Amino acid sequence: MPHLLHIDSSIQGEASVSRTLTARAAQAWKAANPDGTVTYRDLAADPLPLLTGEQNYARFLPVEQYTPAQVEARALTQQLADEILAADTVILGLPLYNYNAPATVKTWVDHLVFPGVTTDPATSEGLLGGRKFQVIATRGGGYGEGTPRHGWDHASPWLVQVLSTLGIEADVIAVELTLAGIVPAMEPLKPLAAESLAAGHRDIDAVFGEPVAASA
Amino acid sequence: MPHLLHIDSSIQGEASVSRTLTARAAQAWKAANPDGTVTYRDLAADPLPLLTGEQNYARFLPVEQYTPAQVEARALTQQLADEILAADTVILGLPLYNYNAPATVKTWVDHLVFPGVTTDPATSEGLLGGRKFQVIATRGGGYGEGTPRHGWDHASPWLVQVLSTLGIEADVIAVELTLAGIVPAMEPLKPLAAESLAAGHRDIDAVFGEPVAASA
Repeated sequence: MPHLLHIDSSIQGEASVSRTLTARAAQAWKAANPDGTVTYRDLAADPLPLLTGEQNYARFLPVEQYTPAQVEARALTQQLADEILAADTVILGLPLYNYNAPATVKTWVDHLVFPGVTTDPATSEGLLGGRKFQVIATRGGGYGEGTPRHGWDHASPWLVQVLSTLGIEADVIAVELTLAGIVPAMEPLKPLAAESLAAGHRDIDAVFGEPVAASA
Repeated sequence: MPHLLHIDSSIQGEASVSRTLTARAAQAWKAANPDGTVTYRDLAADPLPLLTGEQNYARFLPVEQYTPAQVEARALTQQLADEILAADTVILGLPLYNYNAPATVKTWVDHLVFPGVTTDPATSEGLLGGRKFQVIATRGGGYGEGTPRHGWDHASPWLVQVLSTLGIEADVIAVELTLAGIVPAMEPLKPLAAESLAAGHRDIDAVFGEPVAASA
């Protein structure tokens, strides 16, 4: 049975562009997979606990020597890994905050990276591959080549790199200039922002299917 | 009176290389500034609360319309900004975890970036400049040019960029390959790791002064 893991991380609730876009993708996925099931994880509404030094140290210890906190942390890693392994498609919404990923996405990754659970301890090969992993990234400004802040987006490049160590080939669809409607100084960028959003919609629809029309 | 703001973020406690290095720098600073005072912030031991969407939205509202949570968040931003403004030297320890900054450093930045508090709302000019800001970065692996993971370090480049929007010109001293003594596969890199550590010590001593000898 097809299974989707849908992850959001925006702190902006209903005002979030990334949430609107992941919802569009998830809705199309459901229409295309009427017998499919969905796991939803909201990293903003239910943030994971920070990984502590004690818990991190479990990566260097045999299980028999674990403290209760280490047992708990490894179980959380296993749970997060199982959520990915159970899915044949993952959709992750990734807003850019202050030129980097939300702290909650960083914490999700910190728990996920665990030799012996998500990578092969002998070969370091990642164990979470074999599924579609779609990152839907949003950025308040513009970061393309030739713009003053080209190279300042540390969310998408970082996430693609770190996920690759887990065997995941993540694909990124990005929508930029999402603050053009909110920040007065960005008013002149509104047409470019609309273009970026339309392109994002087209990219999502190309991967997941056309949006579902309201039933008659 | 000279004032130092000393910030650590490693989750590794006494096993932390970055903490050892910031302590070396702070000790030398104190020796050179016997009448100086120090504020210490430990982002791992006392992590800041995640910035919520409601709190973030305070950046777009007049103060008169703030909710209690927004008042609290702005006061926290002011406190973090005041800690920097009170210091003529800031030392920040920045370990690299999974190719990015600790989530706690990201949260510190998320609170710090606030138009009207840390940037001029009219010109966007950063308001935290005019002091020495020393980042002491540590990395478990090697990320120099020509290495397979060149470009994977998203901690230092990101932090320098985002701090520049606040008017801060951060300087980075980096020590690499800190996992060479711990990860068996990195055993052959131990000489390079020792070189990197020695270079880090030299760089720190050049900025802050020679380490203080034990008193006779």
